[in-house]
Parts: sequence; structure tokens; C-alpha cells
Amino acid sequence: MTVTLHVCITCRAGETIPEGQPTPGARLRDAIVEAGVPSGVHLVPVECLSACSQGCSVALSAPGRWSYVYGRLSAVNAPDVVAGAAAYAAAPDGIVPWRTRPEIFRKQSLARIPPIPALPEAAE
Amino acid sequence: MTVTLHVCITCRAGETIPEGQPTPGARLRDAIVEAGVPSGVHLVPVECLSACSQGCSVALSAPGRWSYVYGRLSAVNAPDVVAGAAAYAAAPDGIVPWRTRPEIFRKQSLARIPPIPALPEAAE
Repeated sequence: MTVTLHVCITCRAGETIPEGQPTPGARLRDAIVEAGVPSGVHLVPVECLSACSQGCSVALSAPGRWSYVYGRLSAVNAPDVVAGAAAYAAAPDGIVPWRTRPEIFRKQSLARIPPIPALPEAAE
Repeated sequence: MTVTLHVCITCRAGETIPEGQPTPGARLRDAIVEAGVPSGVHLVPVECLSACSQGCSVALSAPGRWSYVYGRLSAVNAPDVVAGAAAYAAAPDGIVPWRTRPEIFRKQSLARIPPIPALPEAAE
């Protein structure tokens, strides 16, 4: 399944960024691109994942799957983000066995959200 | 639109819970039920939203909308959770004007995730 990897590119990670310099979030995005976005993963930059107190963050989501948000990341974590995203894409149900998740995914979870059910509309 | 309000009912909020006593998460769920689940909101208990260091948490989601996760909640916040969920359900696009969000939604966001795009599968 093709999954979406959202990366917050506006994250300043609590730093004061000189004008014209890339934010830590943008550097993380660039490092992920450099590490190589895996097949089946669609990289989408986003302005703010509302996890601003937790440093740079990314989210993994796909239709019918649990969504995951990870934080306290920086550009050095790009290879692990790529590996974790690839595993999420490859898992038939998006649930990657705990032990095979990158350490940053095991220890730096900010939240997960169950699959969004397609609910019937009220009759009214 | 009918939206889903997930409530983590296993949350212990860092407390030691005597056997047979409800967890803080279960108490939050019960308080939400008592406050009255609004029309258009589907309350779904969930075991762990992976935000365990942030006390009790809830998530709001619906097809085609941003998902939101809020934390550091307790049963006393139930009326505000209900009000915020009702506003999310009532907003045509799920985006509630900032000033009209309950304070806990403005100050206790753990994360938000953009709408999940339905991506075409790879041709292979």
C-alpha cells in the first residue's frame, strides 16, 4: 500500500533560525529525501503538526490503518525515519512488529490514532 | 458529518490504580458519557493512544479531515471535550476557528495529522 509520510517543515525545534536559513524541520525533510524515500511512501511536507514542544515531528498514515506521530527528531534520524516508513508501507496491515521498529519509533511516539472508520451519516 | 472521538481507557496517568478500580482513562470516558455525547459524535474507547507520558488523551478524526490528539486530560475536562468534539463535528471541514476551541484544545494539543489522501496504488 502507498502510505503518506508527513514531515513538519516549519519546526524550529526551539531554535532561533537566522533569516534565510532552513528550519530544523526543512533540514529533516531534505535529509529524508537524501536518504531516499522508499517505494510505497509518499513524502508530503506540512506546515505544523501541532507538536511544537516536541521538536521535529513526522506522521505516518494510510487509509484504513493506524496513524502514528513521532517527535524529538532531527536530520540525523532521517535513515531511521525512512526505514520505519518503509516497514509501515510493507506491513500488510500497517502494524510493524514492535521489535523491528526503529528505536526512534519505539521511544519517541507522540501519539497514534486508530483507523478512521467510514461511518454512515445520520438519516436526518 | 459523523466524527469519531477515541478515548484511551487504559490510561493510568502515572497513577497506581488498585485492582478493580477504574483507570483515569475509564473515568474520563464515563464522564464524557455522563456529560452527553453530542449528535454527530461517535465515542469509541481505545486501548492506548501511545501518548502515555501525557496523561489521559483523546483523538478526534473523520474521513477527509485533520485528526487531532489532545492530552493531559482528566474527568473534569469531559464537558470541554464534548464541546470541542461537537464543534469539530459541526464545522463543515472539521476546522474549528481557533478562538472558539475549548482552552484544552488550544493548549493541550499533542499532535494533528493532515487528512489521509487516498493515493493511487503503484502500477506494479
